[in-house]
Amino acid sequence: MPCETIIPPDSPFTLDNIPFGVISTALDPKRRCATALGHHAIDLSLLWKDRDGLEPNQSLYDIFSQPSLNAFAALSSTARSKVREILIHDLSTGCVPEKCFIPLNQVHMHLPMKIWGYSDFFCSLEHAQNCAPLTGGRVARNFFYAPSVYNGRASSVMPSPNPVRRPKGIKYDHDVGQPVFGPTTKMDFELEIGYFVSKPIPLGQTIDAIDAPEHIFGFVLLNDWSSRDFQEFEMTPLGPFHSKGFGTSISPWVITLDALKPFACEPEHVHFATEFDHQRYVERATATFDIRLNASLIRNGQKNNITESNLRSLYWTPYQQIAHHASAGCGLETGDLMGTGTISGQHEGELGCLFEATKDGSRPLEFPNGTTVRYLEDADEIVLEAWCDNGTKRIGFGECRGKILPSLQN
Amino acid sequence: MPCETIIPPDSPFTLDNIPFGVISTALDPKRRCATALGHHAIDLSLLWKDRDGLEPNQSLYDIFSQPSLNAFAALSSTARSKVREILIHDLSTGCVPEKCFIPLNQVHMHLPMKIWGYSDFFCSLEHAQNCAPLTGGRVARNFFYAPSVYNGRASSVMPSPNPVRRPKGIKYDHDVGQPVFGPTTKMDFELEIGYFVSKPIPLGQTIDAIDAPEHIFGFVLLNDWSSRDFQEFEMTPLGPFHSKGFGTSISPWVITLDALKPFACEPEHVHFATEFDHQRYVERATATFDIRLNASLIRNGQKNNITESNLRSLYWTPYQQIAHHASAGCGLETGDLMGTGTISGQHEGELGCLFEATKDGSRPLEFPNGTTVRYLEDADEIVLEAWCDNGTKRIGFGECRGKILPSLQN
Repeated sequence: MPCETIIPPDSPFTLDNIPFGVISTALDPKRRCATALGHHAIDLSLLWKDRDGLEPNQSLYDIFSQPSLNAFAALSSTARSKVREILIHDLSTGCVPEKCFIPLNQVHMHLPMKIWGYSDFFCSLEHAQNCAPLTGGRVARNFFYAPSVYNGRASSVMPSPNPVRRPKGIKYDHDVGQPVFGPTTKMDFELEIGYFVSKPIPLGQTIDAIDAPEHIFGFVLLNDWSSRDFQEFEMTPLGPFHSKGFGTSISPWVITLDALKPFACEPEHVHFATEFDHQRYVERATATFDIRLNASLIRNGQKNNITESNLRSLYWTPYQQIAHHASAGCGLETGDLMGTGTISGQHEGELGCLFEATKDGSRPLEFPNGTTVRYLEDADEIVLEAWCDNGTKRIGFGECRGKILPSLQN
Repeated sequence: MPCETIIPPDSPFTLDNIPFGVISTALDPKRRCATALGHHAIDLSLLWKDRDGLEPNQSLYDIFSQPSLNAFAALSSTARSKVREILIHDLSTGCVPEKCFIPLNQVHMHLPMKIWGYSDFFCSLEHAQNCAPLTGGRVARNFFYAPSVYNGRASSVMPSPNPVRRPKGIKYDHDVGQPVFGPTTKMDFELEIGYFVSKPIPLGQTIDAIDAPEHIFGFVLLNDWSSRDFQEFEMTPLGPFHSKGFGTSISPWVITLDALKPFACEPEHVHFATEFDHQRYVERATATFDIRLNASLIRNGQKNNITESNLRSLYWTPYQQIAHHASAGCGLETGDLMGTGTISGQHEGELGCLFEATKDGSRPLEFPNGTTVRYLEDADEIVLEAWCDNGTKRIGFGECRGKILPSLQN
C-alpha cells in the first residue's frame, strides 16, 4: 500500500511524523502498539510478527505486543531511530502488508504509556505575569532561578477524547464570606505540551540539560484541567492538589524527538544564566521546538478558537525542565510524564487558559457568533491541536479533546 | 516450630502482629512475600507452595511469589483476614515447616508495594502551629476545613535501612542576599506514619470516611526527609518539590488494619464538623489508633531520643485523609502510599522534626552526653519506631532507619 494514496493533505500523520500509540479494536480488544499514517493506524505487533525471524525482530514483536510503549521507550535512542527509519522505508515503498492498516475511526486509543510519575511545570513568564496580579501577588523570585514544578496525579491522566467530570470540592464563597463544598464554578483548561521519559535517571543521580534528549521519548498535547475556585482556597501553603488532580487529558500519539528534530529552534527568551545555570542548565543553541499550538472551544456545536501559542515562548525549555527535575536526585523512570505548564504568548489571543484570557471570569471572551465565555460549562468541549511546518516538512500532533460532564449528584 | 520458642519479649513481631513484607536472601535473590515472627521471617511463597493443592491455595502461592504485596493487598479484606487467621493458627500450633523460617538478619527487605502515587498530608495542628511563625505566617484557613495534602514523588520512596544522600539545590543565602546552588545545610527528618491503599477507588468516584477501612491495607513508619533551606526558597507558589522529593524512607513490614484493631481509639482532637464535614468526613467513634511513636538520632555511635508522639494526636485521621483525597475524583490504586504528615504533640519533646524542635536551628537540642543538634550532619542516622500496647496485646512496627550520605562532588 503506497503511502501517496493514504495521506490526505490535512493529515497530521505524514511520512515525516511516524508517531507511536497504543490501540485496540472491536475485533481485537488486546492493547498493542501502533503508528499512524494518514487516516490509518498501522498495527506494529502484527507487522513485526510477520517479519523474518531474526532475533532483533522477534524481540520487537514482543515489545510492540505490550499494552504500553514503555518497553519500546526503554530501548536506546539509536534503536528507536532505526525502527522509525525502517517504518519510513517500508511505508514509502509499499512493503507494509495491507492487513496491518486499520482505519483510525475503527481504533480505540489508550494511554500510550504506563505513567509512574506525573510532574507539571510552571514555566511561561507571560502566564506567570498574567496570573500574579489576579491572585494578589507578584511572580515569585524562584521563577527566574529554575523551572518551577509540582508533582501531579498520574492516576488522573487519561487519553483524548475521554470526558472529564466537573469535580466537587471546597471553595471560598466571597458572598457569604466562608468556605463551601460543591461543584467547581470555575472550570478551566490549560494548553500545555507533555513529554515522556525514555532512559531512566536512577535515584540520587543528576543530568545536565545538554544530555536531556537521551531521556525524552517524545511529546504529546496536554490539557491540565483546572478548578480555579478550589485552587484559590487550597493553594497556600502546599500548592495545587484537587484543583488539578481530577483529570489531565493527553493526545494519544507520541511525537518522537526524531520527528521534531527539523523544527528545533532557539527559545524566544534567551535569558542570561546565573552562575548555577552555567553548571546545571547549560543550553544548546537550538534547545526547543517551533510547535504551533491552539485551543478551541466547542459549545452548542460551534467551534471557537480561544488561543494560539508556541512551545518556543516558554522561559524554561523542556531540556532545562528535565535537568532541573533530576537535580535533587528524585530519580526518573521510563514512562514518567512531564507537563510544560501553560504556554502563553505575549499578545492578546495567545493566553493559554481562561483564568488569564478572561481575567478570572471578569472579562468574558466574546465570539463573532455571540458565544460568551467566562469559564467552562457542562457539555463544553476543549480541543487542543499542535502543528510543526518549516516549509518542507509538516507534522501534527492530532487532537487532544475532552468534554465536561456534570458533577455527580451524590 | 512452636511460636513460644522464637518470640523474644522485645520483639515487635508477636503473634498478634503478623506483618507482611517482601524479602530476598543471598541463597534465593528472587523477591517474594513474607511475614515475620520474633527474629524470623516466614517465606509465604514457600509455605503456600507446599500446602494441599486446593485452588484458593494455589492462587495464594502465585500471589505470595510476586515481588510486591500489591496482588495480596488487592484481595478482599475478608480474604486477607482469613489468611492472617490461618497464619496465626499454624504458627501457634507449630504447623509451619522449619524450612520456611529465615533469621531476620539473613533477609534483605525490599519495598513492600509497587507504589503508584505517593501523597503526603499536613494534618498535625501542633506541627502547623509551630511551623507557621517560623515561616512568617499563620496556619492557613484551609487547614481546618479538610486534610491538607500535596503529591509527593513515588520514585524516591525507599525501604529502611537505605541511606539517603544529602541533595543539592537552590537556597536563599541570607548573608549575601541572593539564591545560591549547593548542598542543603538544613537537612531534616519528619516523623510520620504511612499507609497503603488496598481496594482501588476508580477515577471520578468518591468515598465517605466511614468506608475508608475497606481501602487501607496497612501501616508503616515513614520518614519524610526534608531540606528546610530548599523548602524556604521553592515553597511559594507551588508547594514542596525538591525539598521533599530526594528521598522518603519507610519501614519494610506492613502492619495490617486487623493487627491494629485492638488499638483503635478516638482522636485527641474531636473537633466540631462543618456542614460539609458531615457529608464527606463523618467519623466513627474509634477512628484512629493509639500508636506510640518515637524518633532518635544516632551520632558518633550514640543514640539520643529526639521526640515521642502518637498517631492519635493528628487533627485529621487517616480515614478522613483518604476520604478527602478521593473527594475530587482523582482515583486511587492498590499500592498508592499516603503519609500522615509530621506527627507532633502538644508538649516539648513531642515535636516531630528538627525544624520545630530547634526552631529552625536557632535553639539547638542538647543531649546529656554533650551532643548538640541543629540539623542533620553527614553520617547521622535517624531511627523511627512505633509500638502499640493495651496491656494485653503488644505489637511493634520495627524500625525505619536511614543514614545521611554526603553530597556527590560533581
